[in-house]
Amino acid sequence: MQTIIGNAMIGQSGGPTAAINATLAGVIRGAAAQTSIGRIFGAVNGIEGLLEERIVDLGAQFDSEEKLEALAHTPAAALGSCRKKLPAYDSGDPIYQKLFSVFRKYGIRYFFYIGGNDSMDTVAKLSKYAAEHDSGISVIGVPKTIDNDLCGTDHTPGYGSAAKYIAATMQEILRDCAVYTVDAVTVVEIMGRDAGWLTAAAAVPKKYCGTAPDYVYLPERPFAYEQLFADIEAALKRHPNVVIAVSEGLRHADGSYVGAKSQSGTVDIFGHAYLSGTGRSLEAAIKQHFGCKVRSVELNIMQRCAAHVASATDIEESVRIGMAAVQCAAAGKTARMMAFSRRPGAEYAVDITEIDVTTAANSVRCVPDAFINEAGNGVTDACIDYILPLCEGELSLRWEHGLPVHAVIDKTPVGAPDPDLD
Amino acid sequence: MQTIIGNAMIGQSGGPTAAINATLAGVIRGAAAQTSIGRIFGAVNGIEGLLEERIVDLGAQFDSEEKLEALAHTPAAALGSCRKKLPAYDSGDPIYQKLFSVFRKYGIRYFFYIGGNDSMDTVAKLSKYAAEHDSGISVIGVPKTIDNDLCGTDHTPGYGSAAKYIAATMQEILRDCAVYTVDAVTVVEIMGRDAGWLTAAAAVPKKYCGTAPDYVYLPERPFAYEQLFADIEAALKRHPNVVIAVSEGLRHADGSYVGAKSQSGTVDIFGHAYLSGTGRSLEAAIKQHFGCKVRSVELNIMQRCAAHVASATDIEESVRIGMAAVQCAAAGKTARMMAFSRRPGAEYAVDITEIDVTTAANSVRCVPDAFINEAGNGVTDACIDYILPLCEGELSLRWEHGLPVHAVIDKTPVGAPDPDLD
Repeated sequence: MQTIIGNAMIGQSGGPTAAINATLAGVIRGAAAQTSIGRIFGAVNGIEGLLEERIVDLGAQFDSEEKLEALAHTPAAALGSCRKKLPAYDSGDPIYQKLFSVFRKYGIRYFFYIGGNDSMDTVAKLSKYAAEHDSGISVIGVPKTIDNDLCGTDHTPGYGSAAKYIAATMQEILRDCAVYTVDAVTVVEIMGRDAGWLTAAAAVPKKYCGTAPDYVYLPERPFAYEQLFADIEAALKRHPNVVIAVSEGLRHADGSYVGAKSQSGTVDIFGHAYLSGTGRSLEAAIKQHFGCKVRSVELNIMQRCAAHVASATDIEESVRIGMAAVQCAAAGKTARMMAFSRRPGAEYAVDITEIDVTTAANSVRCVPDAFINEAGNGVTDACIDYILPLCEGELSLRWEHGLPVHAVIDKTPVGAPDPDLD
Repeated sequence: MQTIIGNAMIGQSGGPTAAINATLAGVIRGAAAQTSIGRIFGAVNGIEGLLEERIVDLGAQFDSEEKLEALAHTPAAALGSCRKKLPAYDSGDPIYQKLFSVFRKYGIRYFFYIGGNDSMDTVAKLSKYAAEHDSGISVIGVPKTIDNDLCGTDHTPGYGSAAKYIAATMQEILRDCAVYTVDAVTVVEIMGRDAGWLTAAAAVPKKYCGTAPDYVYLPERPFAYEQLFADIEAALKRHPNVVIAVSEGLRHADGSYVGAKSQSGTVDIFGHAYLSGTGRSLEAAIKQHFGCKVRSVELNIMQRCAAHVASATDIEESVRIGMAAVQCAAAGKTARMMAFSRRPGAEYAVDITEIDVTTAANSVRCVPDAFINEAGNGVTDACIDYILPLCEGELSLRWEHGLPVHAVIDKTPVGAPDPDLD
């Protein structure tokens, strides 16, 4: 039997997904089974809570498979999240000393950070600092983002569930919009700042359900009102109920956002523009041009937290990648991001791999040309073939009183372990 | 064995729900089992399609339990809907002659109309005309509306599924909003022009899930910004993530709509104002007052078509009430609206009854005082006790390729039956 080498700390960061807690459950389960790991701590609100020593004992709180399963089926970061950006690791900023003093205080040997692009930036910086200061701490990033825009992985945990929600909701919206006979255009706005993966999921019903939005506009292609109006005019000749799916990140050829007019102009801490007006801008323009009934629908935050219709494939993979992260750390590796590698062939299968975390940090993986049709207003069958397996499978959720059962983490700080006892 | 007395015609009308096709499936199943009924026709787009003889053979298209079940799990009017308003039955308008000539042509003895308030107005007028002209046709209304605002019934088919979607989505939105530590207000706008039943469903997680929106504002109470700001200020002292649920139909004490500024000012054919700006109006006002992050989320048409999370109670009852409508018609009754009567006692049980259709037509049943708290910013436990059983139970849906399987009606007109053969 191996000796305990140290404790584990887990944090969550970035925007919510339906699968981020499945990964948390996977890391807890993996760490509990790992003889080289002692206690399993969680940092409330990511590195923000780490700095303030808001630390909970996850090993104690999730000590059964039943509790871990409830956690895996709970949407949004159960530990709380943050959007804190670290300064350069060699900036001499005292924040690093503070963070590593907390690691020492809690006997941390393994730090797992579950997050998106920006969180991988944090992982990269912390691992560099850890290595340079010979701390002996393994820092491992575990990806999550509904946006599916991380480099170095076939797809990201969280994307499949968001895609399933979008595809299922789009199928329902299409049924809803088909009931009347008067000309009407419905614009469905879907998340995705720079990459159109989520918007592309709106086309999933096309292949097998015999229904699909008339057009799908991704941010990978410049947007032009002329094309939109011509497309809608052609669709209205085919049927009265036109439905289009648009990415929140649509931009004109000059790079300006289609939704810019309806925006507050503010940017988040990472400098990303905050978009929320694309659907409404298009609604107004289409109404003015065609004079028919036009409606815009935002899938809004529901698309990232709809755990009640999560993809079983996504949730199971998200647990597995969390467990694999523990193996990676226990093998003494650091500065790694866990990733999925899809096996070639018609049948869907993935292997869990790991890559240098800097590959993923601060870069964006867009929808490739082969997945977008020539007219730039739809996706190809190859794109649907890529997305479909990620949103297949349904979970056996526990429902009580009409609602899915969620796990809640007690956020009361547990205090540092007594060095004499641990 | 009874002789066939005549054929049945079914139409759907008004806005979509997740249960309107369950009622359609119930009427088809009931009519197929009824020896006095010959063929089972469907009018595409309600009385609009009836006038244009867009008639399909539902009995032939849904000739198995498997097909009926797929229909019962499909959202939005599968026959298509309409919003046509009939003139007074004694106006001498030729539309009545036309409608009844179609009934004669298709050998119709039973007409079932599935719809909301306005559709019951149609049922009332058609039955009066039928009776005065001694047509021998039974006209039966079967209610459906997510709004739950029909008089004479404990609740309406379709409400339970919408309520379940709203409650489940609200629970997820609450988890999503809880992840950050900065002050933020989320306004969730929910449908309901005059009655707050749907908005009240947002409070359902409160009783058993330990989470709930901070406030729930129903259209039954006059809205005032002073109270809203005071409420939010108090909530922000308790926690940084304030979530409120608001009805699209909120009005100031002077009767003007809160969302009026963002509206197009158009009214629908029944004279109802088209509302869609309440959440956005509140978002702007709260942002201006508090200066914190504010977001508005519209549950929009998803709340009425989210069949993937339909309430099993609602769908089963919706099938049953459709079957009961056939019994009612076969007994020679007319001008009736089918209704639910809840049995007294702690355990939920309903009986299916019928009432004079004029009781339901053109009137609105609001949330009673006993269901709204004293401050007018929340609902009582009695209200949750009323709603909860309606959204309990989960369906065993058939999923294929990641999505629920829907039924599609072939809309090709079948042509009038040959009188010599039928």
